[in-house]
Amino acid sequence: MTLSHDFEAALRAKIDGKTKPLGALGRIEALAAQIARVQGSLTPRMERGRLILFAADHGMAAEGVSAYPAEVTRQMVLNFLAGGAAANVFARQAGLPVAVVDCGVAGPPIGDPRLIARRIGPGTANARHGPAMTPAQCQAALDLGRELAQEGGFEALCLGEMGIGNTSAAALLAAKITGAPVAGFIGRGTGLDAEGLARKRAILEAAAARTAPRLSPAEALAEYGGFEIAAMAGAMLGAGPARRLVLVDGFIAGAAALVAVTLQPGLRENLVFAHRSAEQGHAALLAALGAEPLLDLGLRLGEGSGALLAWPLLRAAAAMLNEMASFESAAVSGPA
Amino acid sequence: MTLSHDFEAALRAKIDGKTKPLGALGRIEALAAQIARVQGSLTPRMERGRLILFAADHGMAAEGVSAYPAEVTRQMVLNFLAGGAAANVFARQAGLPVAVVDCGVAGPPIGDPRLIARRIGPGTANARHGPAMTPAQCQAALDLGRELAQEGGFEALCLGEMGIGNTSAAALLAAKITGAPVAGFIGRGTGLDAEGLARKRAILEAAAARTAPRLSPAEALAEYGGFEIAAMAGAMLGAGPARRLVLVDGFIAGAAALVAVTLQPGLRENLVFAHRSAEQGHAALLAALGAEPLLDLGLRLGEGSGALLAWPLLRAAAAMLNEMASFESAAVSGPA
Repeated sequence: MTLSHDFEAALRAKIDGKTKPLGALGRIEALAAQIARVQGSLTPRMERGRLILFAADHGMAAEGVSAYPAEVTRQMVLNFLAGGAAANVFARQAGLPVAVVDCGVAGPPIGDPRLIARRIGPGTANARHGPAMTPAQCQAALDLGRELAQEGGFEALCLGEMGIGNTSAAALLAAKITGAPVAGFIGRGTGLDAEGLARKRAILEAAAARTAPRLSPAEALAEYGGFEIAAMAGAMLGAGPARRLVLVDGFIAGAAALVAVTLQPGLRENLVFAHRSAEQGHAALLAALGAEPLLDLGLRLGEGSGALLAWPLLRAAAAMLNEMASFESAAVSGPA
Repeated sequence: MTLSHDFEAALRAKIDGKTKPLGALGRIEALAAQIARVQGSLTPRMERGRLILFAADHGMAAEGVSAYPAEVTRQMVLNFLAGGAAANVFARQAGLPVAVVDCGVAGPPIGDPRLIARRIGPGTANARHGPAMTPAQCQAALDLGRELAQEGGFEALCLGEMGIGNTSAAALLAAKITGAPVAGFIGRGTGLDAEGLARKRAILEAAAARTAPRLSPAEALAEYGGFEIAAMAGAMLGAGPARRLVLVDGFIAGAAALVAVTLQPGLRENLVFAHRSAEQGHAALLAALGAEPLLDLGLRLGEGSGALLAWPLLRAAAAMLNEMASFESAAVSGPA
């Protein structure tokens, strides 16, 4: 998208004309400008959002990289469908619908009409020993995300994920796309103890050693997975042409964002980084993305939970631009 | 309020039993616990909030301590009543009613039926040369806030303020109550340039030199004002016995909080610090309060704008406690 100098000047003038000291709304002003740019409008709309929650399993979970057993992915999908997870609670508070997508949960298909069943496979292969998915599977997952991101009349998407073992996949993706050692992206995930963390580190080092230090985003995705991460990256790529904002959740969604902006740097303008996760590798990932998230609340849950908590800020920013009086309209004096 | 060991244990068990890794919701968990403690309930309610916006003028504004002329206080009150200020916009987004209180705007009374007209006087006296208010005025302002904080059936209050010159009053209050030099609490307010900041510094140093380095909260309030700060402090004191949470906005509201918790340390549990302001003195004030705010968005507007942006987090925290499934109820496996 190219924006004219006139648009930028009008946007600046509109924000600066609001009844507040210059710049006094800080990042809310920057967020309002970002929304306006993405929509190409000085009166942007930010009413309809949606959480798309992608779930899939990881073959590497069999190596013991997570504190939780792999069956939890499936159990949490049922919890999402029943409305009992944090993502459901926060989505209800925010007034957003939740779309739960099975893009590759292990075991037999989950027969529930509320589920968007778009399985690429019954979980990825074990990336410790070989590629997590075929190039065709990788493309299918990207396409799935792209398609879902363009559905409906939403102005913004919260993207969330569920997949036991997916901090491992995200760490490997971040390492292979940036070319930095995987160690800098490894954290405790759902809560590994020191011993578990050491084991995870050894497994990820071995998995990383299978391939070249630096890979293309498509190569890295195919090598390390997962289906839900590829689908989130695809959703971000789909959000661009649809002129939608994407609230990027935490560490896993951040790895998907790294895939997406490496493939398409212009997409960066569509992404709003929702929060700084407590997962240890997130800081390095955010630095690689040059991102400064809106919230820093010590979250490390995933599911799009942090994205949902940031949604009201997006709404407030657009409302500021649309509804706030100007010095002129309210007859308020400027600086003395 | 004393809370039993049993209550704390039950609260901990309830939060830890939710379908999420232990501690994975970070500060949302701590916030949920705070709400539960204040209400003395494991199923706290957080539905009804209200913004009380106190406006008053400061005699010291005549010294040129602000980038804006004093008439802006009155003009902004009209803007609040018309619904055009940032506070109105954010309150509408949050679904909260706004009570605008004239507790001492300079000039004749504002005749508008939507205004809560409870004027202590037509602005404070100039604190550069003598006390900003009489002890009786100070008590009246505290009583006003206390009364308004107990009205209605609200579970939480956002407190906001408008008063040209009130970062000066807040800086002096913070200095006199902590006993630290006023210089550490002085900032650019609505946007002073370097010259304006130097002038403000000189005026506040002179005003500070009039009195002992350390004063009681009541003495400090009477010496330096303002009516809106005393009313906010009173509202916090009133929120305690009413078991209400208070979302403390930025620098000015923080000074009111320092008054309130110095008078009544147990009140600390009722206060939620909404955001870290870009006003330079706020960091020192937060440190004196031992407070770590929820948001850090570079705001420096006042009006309760930051408190309103934090309100959805309060709602989400209570909803997490009330609505989220447990590992048991959702049949989700725990750590392997």
